[in-house]
Amino acid sequence: MESAPPPFENKSEDKFAISINGKLTKKEDARISIFDRGFLYGDSVYEVCRTYNGVPFLLEEHLARLWHSALKLDFIFDFTPEFLTRQINNVLGELGEESAYIRIIITRGEGPLGIIPPKDIKHNIIILAKHWPPNPTHWYEKGVSVIISKVERVAPLAIDPNVKSGNYLNSVMAIHNAKKEGAFDAVMLNREGFITEGSTNNIWIVKNNVLYTPPLLAGILEGITRKTLILLAKKNNLNVIQENFTPNDLINADEAFLTATTKELVPIVQVDSTPIGLGTPGPMYKKLHQIYKSFVKEKTNI
Amino acid sequence: MESAPPPFENKSEDKFAISINGKLTKKEDARISIFDRGFLYGDSVYEVCRTYNGVPFLLEEHLARLWHSALKLDFIFDFTPEFLTRQINNVLGELGEESAYIRIIITRGEGPLGIIPPKDIKHNIIILAKHWPPNPTHWYEKGVSVIISKVERVAPLAIDPNVKSGNYLNSVMAIHNAKKEGAFDAVMLNREGFITEGSTNNIWIVKNNVLYTPPLLAGILEGITRKTLILLAKKNNLNVIQENFTPNDLINADEAFLTATTKELVPIVQVDSTPIGLGTPGPMYKKLHQIYKSFVKEKTNI
Repeated sequence: MESAPPPFENKSEDKFAISINGKLTKKEDARISIFDRGFLYGDSVYEVCRTYNGVPFLLEEHLARLWHSALKLDFIFDFTPEFLTRQINNVLGELGEESAYIRIIITRGEGPLGIIPPKDIKHNIIILAKHWPPNPTHWYEKGVSVIISKVERVAPLAIDPNVKSGNYLNSVMAIHNAKKEGAFDAVMLNREGFITEGSTNNIWIVKNNVLYTPPLLAGILEGITRKTLILLAKKNNLNVIQENFTPNDLINADEAFLTATTKELVPIVQVDSTPIGLGTPGPMYKKLHQIYKSFVKEKTNI
Repeated sequence: MESAPPPFENKSEDKFAISINGKLTKKEDARISIFDRGFLYGDSVYEVCRTYNGVPFLLEEHLARLWHSALKLDFIFDFTPEFLTRQINNVLGELGEESAYIRIIITRGEGPLGIIPPKDIKHNIIILAKHWPPNPTHWYEKGVSVIISKVERVAPLAIDPNVKSGNYLNSVMAIHNAKKEGAFDAVMLNREGFITEGSTNNIWIVKNNVLYTPPLLAGILEGITRKTLILLAKKNNLNVIQENFTPNDLINADEAFLTATTKELVPIVQVDSTPIGLGTPGPMYKKLHQIYKSFVKEKTNI
């Protein structure tokens, strides 16, 4: 199976719009102090969101999750979601693209050295938007392969996977190993040996027309595409069960796919060297992706 | 017990010397691109070292560990320890202080967005030095208190604790909780319930004149002060055992202490609300700290 290139290939013609603490900034000037705790310790929270037709898709959900991540790290934001939304719209206006990727990073701020979070500290707010080209069509038409990662997912008692933070080495090393083996991504297990998630996506399987995805208690991020798809599937009278499953269940599934904000639904057709089902995108995947696309259209008036 | 203030209190008169990629830089100009993977993902390695009498103490050991951290993250350094040492000496020369703290950070570099580590990427090298004032004397004379952390230490299969990386939220949250409870630090357990380490230090207990410290397999960083003290204790015919122990063993120890590069040996005299031994620094701690100080003097010709 051909390994897909990442959609970002820092080409010089890449168009970015960036603001730091509300000030629009050129890419080459977009710099942050080395005393920022986001840089020193990964002490930051973030969200990635995208636009369709110029409209940020489910932005309120992403901002709610950003506040949730912050709360878990004891960040006290001194601004509102409305304030942040205005800044996001400002950056999107500057970018002027219908399809955009948006990354919102809030760091704990610049403090003295030393890991203890200081009390009086001013967050740094970074908003970065970029033109988002269509994802490679072969992801959707042929499907992608995954490996079962030797890197275990960080346990919720150590760092809650529901906190989207600047501590991303766990997933970085998982996908790095996957790429070395020519796979699209790595599926990480928890300490009990159950499947958790991919490096930046949630995992789903289909067995006898029932949809399964790991429960939040498996130690996963509550993906917004995951949450949306659960609602959409139920609305379409499909049976969705949030239940732990093993690599063996994945290999023996009828179909499998992943979900992610920037990728929507992508069929998984191979695990390590074993094909899943017929090794091609299955009918349930196709049906669900259509349902999801219709919902996107409805929400963004394309 | 009084909680000690951190030695760093970003006072305006704080004197720093900083170089970024070999170029000496003022503190206010010490900035890094927001596209640096150290900032985006904590995809960086670091070391903290100190000088006594103007001499970097055990610098070769710290650099060896930096290379070891990098190797585990598949960083390929395109420079030598000698090259880095010259840059460190340059920064220390600029600082001009006899007692200095040195932080060396190497990031994977600035890449395209997306978590996959790119192949052709140039590391950013940040060296930061600061005057290091004497630590508070009451740490050593009265001892400090710790809590048993509810935050579990990240498991070696998820992120190897022997990699000193920019992913530090695990320890940040542990010490943050300790400070909220008025303690000096938090002692983290592994998933099996054994003691691993403090937020930035190794843990030791003394029972019947035998020294115990958790083995590397407990999931800890191999501290350089820990390693040095094991050798020094053996040289002084003391019995040192690297063996797992529990919070209960810590509470029932005759003495306990922590070790860290910037703190040397600090007696732990209280766990949660329970005193250890007599609740004061014990004779073995005092003996060992003297042995350590003599070794420092010998190495740095004070």
